[in-house]
Amino acid sequence: MKSLGYYNGKFGPIEEMMIPMNDRVSYFGDGVYDATYSANGVIYTLDEHMDRFFNSAGLLKINIPLSKDEMKGILYEMLAKVDSDENFIYWQTTRGTGMRSHAFLSNDMPANIWIVIKPDKVKDLSQKIRLITAEDTRFYHCNIKTLNLLVNVMASQKATEMGCNECVFHRGDRVTECAHSNIHIIKDGVFKTAPTDHLILPGIARAHLIKMCKKHNIPVDEAPFTVEELFNADEILISSAGSFCLAACEIDGIPCGGKAPEILKTLQDGLTEEFETETKKSLIQ
Amino acid sequence: MKSLGYYNGKFGPIEEMMIPMNDRVSYFGDGVYDATYSANGVIYTLDEHMDRFFNSAGLLKINIPLSKDEMKGILYEMLAKVDSDENFIYWQTTRGTGMRSHAFLSNDMPANIWIVIKPDKVKDLSQKIRLITAEDTRFYHCNIKTLNLLVNVMASQKATEMGCNECVFHRGDRVTECAHSNIHIIKDGVFKTAPTDHLILPGIARAHLIKMCKKHNIPVDEAPFTVEELFNADEILISSAGSFCLAACEIDGIPCGGKAPEILKTLQDGLTEEFETETKKSLIQ
Repeated sequence: MKSLGYYNGKFGPIEEMMIPMNDRVSYFGDGVYDATYSANGVIYTLDEHMDRFFNSAGLLKINIPLSKDEMKGILYEMLAKVDSDENFIYWQTTRGTGMRSHAFLSNDMPANIWIVIKPDKVKDLSQKIRLITAEDTRFYHCNIKTLNLLVNVMASQKATEMGCNECVFHRGDRVTECAHSNIHIIKDGVFKTAPTDHLILPGIARAHLIKMCKKHNIPVDEAPFTVEELFNADEILISSAGSFCLAACEIDGIPCGGKAPEILKTLQDGLTEEFETETKKSLIQ
Repeated sequence: MKSLGYYNGKFGPIEEMMIPMNDRVSYFGDGVYDATYSANGVIYTLDEHMDRFFNSAGLLKINIPLSKDEMKGILYEMLAKVDSDENFIYWQTTRGTGMRSHAFLSNDMPANIWIVIKPDKVKDLSQKIRLITAEDTRFYHCNIKTLNLLVNVMASQKATEMGCNECVFHRGDRVTECAHSNIHIIKDGVFKTAPTDHLILPGIARAHLIKMCKKHNIPVDEAPFTVEELFNADEILISSAGSFCLAACEIDGIPCGGKAPEILKTLQDGLTEEFETETKKSLIQ
């Protein structure tokens, strides 16, 4: 199969899959998701993504009817059915199915399980990206990976229309994250990134970036930084499940970055090597 | 039919209706909706709701593939297929169908049209309701009637669990609206309600309440009010498509209201009469 869709045990080509109209996703976006990439039959950093997935669901009192191991098992079972060696692995859970009602009445409503697998691969880190900025008008639950993504959709669309790759959000002066990535800066040899509070997603690529800094004795400062600091950074970096550490060359039409190429190369090489090592596991098993 | 579901021209019992997994509602909650009630074959205040629906869609660049008149025609066509004389009429549009991607690339993507009709009737205004309060942690686009309703869902659930009817949101000191209603107060003979900005939905029941005040020479003050003013009000009122003007008897466990019964009666009687007059139209046509 090229691209697979899965819903509560049924699966098939994604374009042919149907779901009940009364799934609560339809009326409320009432669900959470997670996603990562696979190569050579290995789903990268799956344990970390699965932990975050269950944490997101728990914060919204969504009762996933499977254990983490069962969910991981189904992902691998579905991955075996697609043709490509490199894939985007996406899964979500929605609170349940029933007539539209804001309150969900019983916390025991069984949640629905969704999976999407499509051919895709992690980004080439040698490319430089272009950014725009926008006021962060999202809700105050950005630590939860929910399906309420309209602001992210509109920001991504605006970036695309302007020929850019990502939109950087800021709440007033404070930089938070991007429409679908975390953001970091390097200044005077220090890696600076916002702390994980309710304003940003606790990115798994972000955590790996921080670990890679520590491995190479690059000082890490987990503290809020401002729009001014962003524009004056030596490098502006974004990270996500598919973009381990991409550097920007332009922000709001102004050239940026390129002033800490050695640190950048150290981080990018280290993260690429980590991915390649982990996703070769299957070959030696 | 008891309860009807409609999706892009197909319709049937709501529980049996299926929609494509790749509808953008599934991944982003990427759509807007509107809703009202019908009685005796008349959909109440349909023009106003349809205007707001198209406005919501336009603000998010969703291209509804029908005119307002065509959309109204389909609603009446579907209404004729259900058994009940009194119904909840709900409709929404989602941006389109395609592989998951935040940016929607072409603004010409044809939107999907959804309808749900189920037996229900507007609330009896003689009942008194109980409220809780909560910090408003929603996004800053509350003027748009979107399908990103997770915060509203969680607040409604909390109210239900506490044996209450609604949750009143406040941003810091300022009262905004409720999880699925607007909120107003009466104090010293003046009807006070928050202005329509990006923090609240421009409620149609709210607009009718204001008109009813003016008709009866009750002064209206459209200005932000505080949590303290809320707790000290002579009456606390909520309004929505199905609750024209409900008065609260308790908020966060503290008795409230009951200090402006004459104004309350004037407004409730006027709004009930307006509804009954409008929804009898079909009998004299």
